[in-house]
Amino acid sequence: MIRVAINGYGNLGRGVELAISKCADMECVAVFTRRDPQTLTTLGAPAVPLADVEKWRGKIDVVINCGGSATDLIDQGPQIAQWFSCVDSFDTHAKIPQHFSAMDEVARQAGTLALISSGWDPGLFSMIRVLADAVLPGGTATTFWGPGVSQGHSDAIRRIEGVQDAKQYTVPIDAAVETVKSGGSVNVPRQMHTRECFVVAEDGADRDAITQAIVTMPNYFADYDTTVTFVTPEEFARDHSGMPHGGKVIHVGSTSEHRHSVVFDLQLDSNPEFTGSVLVASARAVARMAGRGNTGAITMMDVTLGDLSPRDNSELRAHFL
Amino acid sequence: MIRVAINGYGNLGRGVELAISKCADMECVAVFTRRDPQTLTTLGAPAVPLADVEKWRGKIDVVINCGGSATDLIDQGPQIAQWFSCVDSFDTHAKIPQHFSAMDEVARQAGTLALISSGWDPGLFSMIRVLADAVLPGGTATTFWGPGVSQGHSDAIRRIEGVQDAKQYTVPIDAAVETVKSGGSVNVPRQMHTRECFVVAEDGADRDAITQAIVTMPNYFADYDTTVTFVTPEEFARDHSGMPHGGKVIHVGSTSEHRHSVVFDLQLDSNPEFTGSVLVASARAVARMAGRGNTGAITMMDVTLGDLSPRDNSELRAHFL
Repeated sequence: MIRVAINGYGNLGRGVELAISKCADMECVAVFTRRDPQTLTTLGAPAVPLADVEKWRGKIDVVINCGGSATDLIDQGPQIAQWFSCVDSFDTHAKIPQHFSAMDEVARQAGTLALISSGWDPGLFSMIRVLADAVLPGGTATTFWGPGVSQGHSDAIRRIEGVQDAKQYTVPIDAAVETVKSGGSVNVPRQMHTRECFVVAEDGADRDAITQAIVTMPNYFADYDTTVTFVTPEEFARDHSGMPHGGKVIHVGSTSEHRHSVVFDLQLDSNPEFTGSVLVASARAVARMAGRGNTGAITMMDVTLGDLSPRDNSELRAHFL
Repeated sequence: MIRVAINGYGNLGRGVELAISKCADMECVAVFTRRDPQTLTTLGAPAVPLADVEKWRGKIDVVINCGGSATDLIDQGPQIAQWFSCVDSFDTHAKIPQHFSAMDEVARQAGTLALISSGWDPGLFSMIRVLADAVLPGGTATTFWGPGVSQGHSDAIRRIEGVQDAKQYTVPIDAAVETVKSGGSVNVPRQMHTRECFVVAEDGADRDAITQAIVTMPNYFADYDTTVTFVTPEEFARDHSGMPHGGKVIHVGSTSEHRHSVVFDLQLDSNPEFTGSVLVASARAVARMAGRGNTGAITMMDVTLGDLSPRDNSELRAHFL
């Protein structure tokens, strides 16, 4: 059994815990938290103060860092990597090289293995971008996100005066998807995605002012066609409590006058549960690779599919090839 | 530069040659053939009798076996693997374990590395089936093929009396694709694909008899809704000279009450050119892995995306992750 610990017990941590429970070759041995462990109800593993993590050396094969923000992962990653092999879903694309270097240095010194930026984007989408570029060099990859909830955009709306709750869905524009699939190019934000906002206003709030504040918000909404729909707290709870997400990578390239398209499409009912499931498969690969003596930082580019799979290679060859 | 040789110069061999010409890190150093080499017009590499292949030891990093049939690959694979690392696109699914064992034994003994069953199915589709199963265990994968030309079915029609030429397109049924994407199950052949046949009849041939012979042909057509359209030789040359293909792998699974779908879709204007391009990326990985001392038989399950890519890992992390 691969002994896995979860570091951080928010939505993602719970998604990871659920995913581990579905894997016959893995067990969750501890959940580390900065909160009072007494307040956590896990599926069975002990909740442990993060401050005690070092005491678990030798009892854990892989720690999955489920910190709630990029800052969490930048701080906690090296702390964990000095004692344990680990996996994270670091997703601030611009800071990946820096996070990689920091983790690589600590992990090499400690003799641990740290897989960063797993999940679905970065993660599965990254794998497809690299694969498609390798088999169709000179082509162009375009990534669409959604339909799905953007946490950052939802938070931005909630900070507006008079807003009680809000959820923002990023929705790819079908016509743009079709244009890209047939070899065309679309890269203006407004032509690629719309933003659909569902808002619960406080009693007596100025709805027009809220709408204006949303649709004109720079960086977040001003560059998009944005719709704002006010809903009651009941409608919000009924229709907008989920965390669906997804997206697609479309790579189009030519070998001659012949054009080819590679499309990878995810539709996810629950972003944290699916992301958690990818992190758990990644943790399996890390445990196996660390067991073979690999150390330092790696990404999904450095992992074989055989190592991600719970099945042995002869079964994969007979039934999946 | 990775020195690649092509073994077999049919449609696939030419696709491989074209793909090598697009790779700055690879060169085609020889084309081996069982035909009279004088009859081949390559893009530049010398055409060499296959009988002389052993003389090229030390001058080639990877041979890409492009034999025209599974029998070719079963015979030529071990012959080549005793002297060279190699790649093939062996696609008789039921015989893969046997071919793998034969290649593994020869390659281990010879100290070469042999990647079998690359291409898109098996190959990229296999990778996606394993990846999706690893990140969504307990889910179900369904593979659709087409729209595209089935060489075997086209050949079967051409063997019918009165048929001058023919092409058969396998076409996935949209309703079945949608059913599978939304978690339903479809596994009766007739519900998954139609077969569309375009036939040039000989002068005076009995068209009704040809149609009957096609639609009732066991294994090939009887289990499908098959349409037969007679066309003139000119229409055939104009509209049916290509070799398009493609297909999709759809994996649907759940993490809880939440369902997720993973769809990988290829639309290829030229099956041999795209397959050739995948084999060339595979050859890059084989050259690199053989250079690190790996020997024996492997599949796409044993290869990292980093090794398939012409780009170095830091570029992949900065721009593709």
